Parts: sequence; structure tokens; C-alpha cells
Amino acid sequence: MTNCIHDHARWGAGDQLGAANLLTPEHTVASLALVKEGRIYDLSQMIEMGAPRIQPVQSPYVIHSGSTAANGIKRRREMGAENDAGSNLERIEMTVHVGTHIDALGHFTKGDQMYGGRSADDEVGDFGLHNLGIEHAPPMITRGVCIDVSGLDGGEYLYAGRAVGRDDLERALEQADVELRPGDAVCIHTGWGRFFMTDNDKYVAGEPGVDLPAAKWLTGQDVLAIACDNMAVEVLPGTDHPKLMMPVHQHALVECGVYLIENLVTEQLVRDGISSFCFILLPVKFKGATGSPVMPVAII
Amino acid sequence: MTNCIHDHARWGAGDQLGAANLLTPEHTVASLALVKEGRIYDLSQMIEMGAPRIQPVQSPYVIHSGSTAANGIKRRREMGAENDAGSNLERIEMTVHVGTHIDALGHFTKGDQMYGGRSADDEVGDFGLHNLGIEHAPPMITRGVCIDVSGLDGGEYLYAGRAVGRDDLERALEQADVELRPGDAVCIHTGWGRFFMTDNDKYVAGEPGVDLPAAKWLTGQDVLAIACDNMAVEVLPGTDHPKLMMPVHQHALVECGVYLIENLVTEQLVRDGISSFCFILLPVKFKGATGSPVMPVAII
Amino acid sequence: MTNCIHDHARWGAGDQLGAANLLTPEHTVASLALVKEGRIYDLSQMIEMGAPRIQPVQSPYVIHSGSTAANGIKRRREMGAENDAGSNLERIEMTVHVGTHIDALGHFTKGDQMYGGRSADDEVGDFGLHNLGIEHAPPMITRGVCIDVSGLDGGEYLYAGRAVGRDDLERALEQADVELRPGDAVCIHTGWGRFFMTDNDKYVAGEPGVDLPAAKWLTGQDVLAIACDNMAVEVLPGTDHPKLMMPVHQHALVECGVYLIENLVTEQLVRDGISSFCFILLPVKFKGATGSPVMPVAII
Amino acid sequence: MTNCIHDHARWGAGDQLGAANLLTPEHTVASLALVKEGRIYDLSQMIEMGAPRIQPVQSPYVIHSGSTAANGIKRRREMGAENDAGSNLERIEMTVHVGTHIDALGHFTKGDQMYGGRSADDEVGDFGLHNLGIEHAPPMITRGVCIDVSGLDGGEYLYAGRAVGRDDLERALEQADVELRPGDAVCIHTGWGRFFMTDNDKYVAGEPGVDLPAAKWLTGQDVLAIACDNMAVEVLPGTDHPKLMMPVHQHALVECGVYLIENLVTEQLVRDGISSFCFILLPVKFKGATGSPVMPVAII
Repeated sequence: MTNCIHDHARWGAGDQLGAANLLTPEHTVASLALVKEGRIYDLSQMIEMGAPRIQPVQSPYVIHSGSTAANGIKRRREMGAENDAGSNLERIEMTVHVGTHIDALGHFTKGDQMYGGRSADDEVGDFGLHNLGIEHAPPMITRGVCIDVSGLDGGEYLYAGRAVGRDDLERALEQADVELRPGDAVCIHTGWGRFFMTDNDKYVAGEPGVDLPAAKWLTGQDVLAIACDNMAVEVLPGTDHPKLMMPVHQHALVECGVYLIENLVTEQLVRDGISSFCFILLPVKFKGATGSPVMPVAII
Repeated sequence: MTNCIHDHARWGAGDQLGAANLLTPEHTVASLALVKEGRIYDLSQMIEMGAPRIQPVQSPYVIHSGSTAANGIKRRREMGAENDAGSNLERIEMTVHVGTHIDALGHFTKGDQMYGGRSADDEVGDFGLHNLGIEHAPPMITRGVCIDVSGLDGGEYLYAGRAVGRDDLERALEQADVELRPGDAVCIHTGWGRFFMTDNDKYVAGEPGVDLPAAKWLTGQDVLAIACDNMAVEVLPGTDHPKLMMPVHQHALVECGVYLIENLVTEQLVRDGISSFCFILLPVKFKGATGSPVMPVAII
Repeated sequence: MTNCIHDHARWGAGDQLGAANLLTPEHTVASLALVKEGRIYDLSQMIEMGAPRIQPVQSPYVIHSGSTAANGIKRRREMGAENDAGSNLERIEMTVHVGTHIDALGHFTKGDQMYGGRSADDEVGDFGLHNLGIEHAPPMITRGVCIDVSGLDGGEYLYAGRAVGRDDLERALEQADVELRPGDAVCIHTGWGRFFMTDNDKYVAGEPGVDLPAAKWLTGQDVLAIACDNMAVEVLPGTDHPKLMMPVHQHALVECGVYLIENLVTEQLVRDGISSFCFILLPVKFKGATGSPVMPVAII
Repeated sequence: MTNCIHDHARWGAGDQLGAANLLTPEHTVASLALVKEGRIYDLSQMIEMGAPRIQPVQSPYVIHSGSTAANGIKRRREMGAENDAGSNLERIEMTVHVGTHIDALGHFTKGDQMYGGRSADDEVGDFGLHNLGIEHAPPMITRGVCIDVSGLDGGEYLYAGRAVGRDDLERALEQADVELRPGDAVCIHTGWGRFFMTDNDKYVAGEPGVDLPAAKWLTGQDVLAIACDNMAVEVLPGTDHPKLMMPVHQHALVECGVYLIENLVTEQLVRDGISSFCFILLPVKFKGATGSPVMPVAII
């Protein structure tokens, strides 16, 4: 049992949805009703060769043109075709933690413990996760709340290693006159996203992000997901590094079943002064995968 | 110039959006207003090893666990960590035409000609497409219309090579009492999807699907996309095979800028008698890729 | 301690070479001295898409043209080049157990036990083996001995599941008037290789091969390696299947440090009646890999 | 017709072997006869993540543990096994131009022209080369000659961009009292190899290497291959850069059918004062590939 609303007892041992249990039809209707103007913000980064990654675990993203139009036309002509249909196709090699992505609940462990009372030893197969892969994450339609903490230190972005605490979040929410509600997708803007693909070495060497108490406060608000414009949502190096490494991942994913969304693009939302919106994220069902690259959107 | 509403002249040479130009804020608002109950249908297939593919151009989907919790814990302990944070991660190798996916406008050519007046010779680079990759496809929120033609021949599904013609579509729409509107995502249910991962050899050896006149009629209705519960939307082998190969791809993508969505899961929609709905598809921005695996949803 | 000459005590705990310790300069000189005519036999299969593999652990081999001459010429022209140098390049995705390959000593375990007294728990990292990868296997120049057992049952090849026993080997050697010597690379011809790429389903569904007593006899002769014209050297299903699975791999690699070489091409040697020869195998140093695809040769 | 001994006319249009035509049985016997002591030098670099590569065409080398012993044991136990055979296996993604490798004759073009009078437009398929892939390169057993030019400028290595000319080669050969002979594998030591994996940015940013006249002189000596302790054999940037890019590749591979071997490890040969030796290189038969990673050896 944890000090968390989303504890295992709440949805039963073996649960595979976590906070996504909150996504009822009523919740969907209410979330879509937030849309007034029909303006859509794409909250995703471009995925391309050289995309930032935390080494060594995140290996490089690679894309190559595979089949090309010219060869396809030749092949089809040999079969008797006269309409010269050329098809282009590529080959991609990747981890699912590239670009803007959502973590599956099975992405992290606390020792052998995984979400829903599962054991890592049982759960982690050669070809992915047996029960906690991203294919269990449902379509997510909810309210999104953007919390802008980028200016806390007087600049346009927070520095690497700057812990965003519970007070920081509460104050920013107050200033925006927004209160968190169960099922919210919390989107934290630290300003760090400006270094994505403009200075990848800096982007991955460390980052501002939430600390463990802040994460506990958020999960205590019963949110669906915590998203951020950085690699890991949580502050890196952590406040108790190296004694505690990635504690927010453990708390959110393993203890609470709360999703983490990384490398979110929040710049435009902040520029337009948008604090709450309809948030939609549709994870691709890569069976057994520990996450999925996505294009989340905010709609107002 | 083509006999198509979505011709190059309509949105100008160099256009990269095609029919997605129809997706205005007003259209978004109207599409979301279709939602009454808040019930979401996931229209995507699971992506896993052995996923069906059209050979030789579509190479196999591969997933392996890369970094595992046990090793991550060891590595972090060596760095001084005491909280045993284990991270699982995988490596995926794929074409983007695996599972349920959307084709980018640059996926096909007509000889050297590509959508928007571009030349394949210029457009197809070693690492993807220069101007017509999937990163240009915006979030798609529109009305979806499910056209059930599965029972046309008295069975539960159409056979491979069965051309679905314009009349078939019109009759099915009439029976469902639905009229197509500009910007619709047309979702055709042939019943063929039942063979996805249950009999992949059969699934890919051929398929029922729309013929060229049917496709022309659909693009003439100014639809956003044509989706189907098969590998290629269009009937295979085609009606004039091998003289004409993949003519629907050429017509829709190259001539009209109308998107194709493949391996859609329509079974549940049909079972529940749902003909129109709010349709949402959010392509992942793999730069230069000729498509993206997705999880499209229908919401009623 | 095992009933094997190549036991751990022989070369000390932590040894990484196994039977390759036998490959002294004198041995090299003697082995090369076997060459009289200068005729070279390539003993390797072609590696291509669709290459046979034992599922699920061996995932498919994939090759795509990556960079192509046409694009390279364009890119260099833009940089000012006038000599139109086009470069072709591909992307390969593979396991190292594709085609003709050699197993590293760390490819197999007996429970947690690995060659040289190492523990699998310590040894198997996220990015390969720490101490027993193929990069520790030295160049192998030795005597090769081809043992033809293909005709044992009166046909041109042995059937799947046919155990090749110690007596079979001894009789065939006697018939060929060859005696095994320390450091030999034993190349067993079962005739099974004829199904490589001609009937892959058959080739991998089972195979003739050595049983455990035969393997023990071979390691007792102090051989360097056991090679065969099949996927796994050992008979599949094994003689005590499923109680004992892959016991020859455990015995040879883990207990004895004797190398296994698979998918060898022995057809031509047998056709030409060649029983002993100079054998050369040069493993590629993929760090941490559990083997390497190779082109072994026989020279007479 | 070119100013080259190895021109197309020599071995006929359609030839796929190039200078490897020189490798007769007599040549093999003579080359092996060079071995006196039986000492083997491994001339290959280790291949690992982060291996140097020329961007953008050479994409990164990736290796991950795929199947691991622990999971293999579980899987086999479920099938009834009692001997706990664990197998480790990995997944590699690579170009063949990683580490020490040999270029296939089809790796480069001169405009549309390829070795043996072939056209790039015909030759370069989606899944590799049709006729000039590395699978046509035979086992190479020949005399190797190491030419040490590292000290030409008074240091231990030549700087990037330093052209090694014909005179440099001739003088170094004279000093070593060695004359080139038809079929030789020429191994040039510039000292640049010291930066492989110790300073990869430097290693790939440029390099000392042969210029076009030197390459022409070498092919005029009827050599089998030109090898070097750098990425590209030839000096980079070239002497007439950017007007002429990669002219040595064009001359050697396309015009002459002379092989190029890159990232060779020559340090130890030079340290031991070894100028000529038996050279063996056995390319892996990746069908259609433009080269192969290898472990070439020198034997004295």
C-alpha cells in the first residue's frame, strides 16, 4: 500500500490500466465539451535521425528509404504493369522512447515490483512485456492542464537540475486560476523543450523537472498523466542523486499507474496563454512495448 | 489536371496537405459535436512479430527487449543508487506500413509524378521523403462513415479479388441512410479483417477492396481519407491486373491528395450498427516517412 | 569438474578462449602445411532475406538498400563535385546466428553457469556479453576433418531426428582412414544442408545431428570445434526431448569451451572425396555478440 | 577503356570478380608458403556501439541483447526441459561499412557506370545489388605488403588531408626493400588508426590517405586490394575537393575492380617491422551487400 490514491488496492491486483480507469464515457463527453473554437495544437516533436536520447539505454533512431518508386516501377513493369505505380517505403529502427512518447506502466520497476503487483522476473520477456505493454493503454481523451513554470527563476526556461516542487506547481496553477481534477493530463512547461534538436547534448545532459514530492502531490490529485517538455518529466540529476535515481518514474508508473509523457511540445500553448484544453493521445499498439511515440494534441 | 476535385490546381502546386486542407476549425467543432455517449472504439490492430505484410516491399516487423530492469538496477547500483529503479526498453525494426496505418501522400508515384506536382526523382532521398512525408499530415478530427459491404455476396465477408464498386458503396450508404460529406473519413468494412493474424497468408495473398471507379467516386465526394479492413484499401488483384497495378493508390494519393488508411478494425462498429461517428487519427511525425502506424478511434 | 578434457580447470577460471588455446604457432604452421594444390572450398551459405532461423529466438534477417548511388551523386553535386561518385550502402538487421556462423562460448548457459566459471546473471548485459562474446575468439587456422555420415541410412541424407552417435562417427572416420587429432575442426556432413533455402520449413523443423554421447566423444578427442551442415550441430528433437534440450550446446560451449559452427556447406567436400584439409575461420569482432556469421574455408 | 591494367576489357564485360581473378591455386600455394613462424596478426578493429562512421550515409551500429539465458530457461522449462539450457542472442543493426571491412566492387559508381560495364540504374535494387554484391568476392589468400608512411612528416602519424603520393609509397617500399607483385594486398599504415574509438570525431572528420595518382600507380602494379588504417583509404578531403570527391573509390572499384579494405589495424605489424606476409580475408556472403565486416589476418 502506498500513500497514493492510485495504489494497487484501488483497481485490484492485476490491473493493467492504472489511472486510465478514470476515463469513463462521461469523462470523454465532458472533455470534448471543452472544445469551443476547434483550434488544434500539435504537441509533438519531429522524430528524425539524431533525435535526443538518454544513453546508454536509449539507442539511436535510424530511418532509411527501403523500397523506392523507381525500383517498384521496374518490378511492376516486369510483371506487365503499364501504369508505373512507384511505391516508396522505409525501414525504421527505434526505441519507443524517441520523440514525444508515452511510457507504458511496465516501463519501470521498483526492484522486482511492477505495477499491479506483478514481478519483473515474470513480466519481462525477450520480445517485450507480457502484461504491462503499451497495448493496454487505451485512447486518452481528457482535460489537459498546462502549468507554466518556465519563468520561475526569472528567465525563459529553468536550468538543468532545477527541481519543480509542489509549491511551484500550486502557485502556477493559482496564477492561471486552474484547479486540477481527477483524470487530468498535466502538461508542465519548463521551457527546456527549446533545446530539443537545437542542442541535444544540453537537452539530455540534465533537465529541470518535478521532484518526488511534487509528483506525489500530482498523483494525489488523481491525475491521468504527467507530461513535460523534457526527456524524463522528473528533474535530472534528481534531488537525492545518486542515492535515488528516477524516483518519479517509480512512483508514477509502478506505485500509482499514472502515465508519463515525455518530450511534449508546450511552447505554443504557453505563448497563446492556454491553461486548460481538451487533450487527446492515441498510443500505437506495439505489443509488449514499454511505450509509444505519439502525436498528442490540445484542442480549444 | 485530373478528373478529381482534389487536383493540384485546387490547393496549388507544392501543397503538402491534400484533402487535409478541408480540416478547418469549424470542421473540427462540428465533428466533435457528433459525440453524444462518449463511447470510444479503438479501430487499430495489434502490432506484433509476424504481422502481415505485402512482400517483398514490406519487410518484417521485429521487436526485442533491449534494456531490462535487472540490468538497469545493476547499473544504477554501481552508480550509488539505492532505490533499485529498473527500466525496460525495447528495440523495434519496422516499416511504417505495419498494423493499422495511414499512408503519407508521398507513399506512391505515377511514374515520376508525385502529389502536388513534385518529382519522385527529387523527392525520394536516402533517409526518407523530402517534402511529402507523414510529418506533414496534420491531426485528423473529422466525421467517420462506416460503409458495410461485407454481406454483398451473402456471406460474412467478401472474397479476395472482389471489387467493391461505386454502386455497392452507394447502395450500402443508402441502406444506412448516410450521405457522404466533404472531409469524411470513409471506413469500408469488407469483413476481410478477420484474417489479420488468424490467417496471414490468406490475408495478404489478395483482398476485396474498392476498384478505381469507386475510388474516383469517393474522391469526387471530397472525402479526407479512404480506410478499409484490408492491407491496401483497393481490390487485389486489381480488376485490370497486371496491366494496372495499385491504381487506387495512384489516384487517391498522387492525383487527389486523399489519404489511405489500412488494416482498419471495423468489426465492432458494424456489430453495433454504427454508421457515422467522430473519427480521430493522430499520425506520429516520423520525418520523411511514407506513413505512420496509428490508433485511429471512432467516438459516438 | 566435468568428464571433459576441456574442463575449467584446464585453462583456469576466467579463461575466454576455450579450445582455441590449442591454436599455437606450431599448430598454425602444421595446419597450413596441409595445403598442396591451393584449391579453396568456400564452406558458407549465402545470407539473404528469408534465411532459415529457429523461432522464436532467432528473428528474421533483413537487408535494405540504404544510400543509393543516384542520391549520393546529387548530394555531392550540391557540394560542388563534378565526378559523379555514387555510393551504394545498405542497412542490415540480423542475429549473428544467421547463415553459416560460429557460436561464441557465451552463447549458452547451464542454469546460471557459463564457460570459465562465469555466472549468466553477471555476464549477460543489455548490449551483449561482458566477457564471453565472439570478440574473444581468435583467428582459427587448423586441420579440418570432414566426416560423411549422410549415407548411414542408405539415402543421400539423414532424416530429422536421426541421432548421429559415436559409433557412426568412428566408423565413418575409419572408412575415410582419418584419425582425429587435438585442435581439429570436425565438419560433419549429414546431407541436411540441401534443404537450406530450398525448403526452410523442413530445414528448421528438426534435423539429424550428433547426440550427447557423440559430442562427449568428440570433445574427448580435444577438438577445436564441431561443425555441421544443419542449424544446431546436435540432433533435433534431441534423443531425450523434451527433458534434455540442447544438451550438446551446453556440453560443448559451457563445459568444454569447444566451438560450434552451424549451417556449414560440406556438399562439395564430400563430392570431391576430401576428408582432411586446412580449415580457416575468421570471426568478425562484434563486441559482446554471441557469435558471428563467417565464411569458413577448406584448402587442399 | 581506362589507363588501368584491370580494365573491363581484361576480364570481359560482366565480370564480377575484378582483381580477384588473380587468385589462382598457384597463387594460394605461394602465398601460404610465406608463413614460417605461424604467428597470426589480427588486423581488425572491434565493432561496437559508437563505432566511427561517415555521416550521413553510414548510419549507426546498434547491438542489443535479444533473447537471454534467463528467459530461455523459463521457456524450455515450460516445455518440460530439466537441463536449464539458457541461450543468449542479440540483434544487430548495421551498415556493412562498420569496423574493419572490405568494399564490394558495386559499392561505388561513376555516374551510372559500375564495374564490369554495368549500369547503376539496373544494378541497385531495393534489397541490395543484383550482380556486384560482396557475395561474389571470393576467399582472399594472397601476399600482404605493409607500407609504413606514418613517419613521413616526422611524427607518429600523418595529419588529416595529407595526401600520400606515389613517390611516398615507392620510397617506403624501397626503404623496406619490398617490391609489389600482382595480386598483393597493399596495407598502408598512416598511423591514423590510433584515433579509432579514441577520438572518433577526429577520425572521421578527415584523414591522411592515398591520392588518385598513387591509387593509379597501385592498380598499375596489378594489386588485389588497397587497405588502410583509416575510413576510406583515400585522403580526405581529397586533393581536388570538392571538385573531385572519392576519386580513388571510383578508380579502384569501378574502373579497375581492385578492392578497398578500410579501418585496417596495422599498428602491430609496423611495431614488429613486418613488411610482407601471408594475408587472408574471408568476406561474409551477405547477398547483395556493398561490403562485409571482416577479420583479416596477417601470418608470418
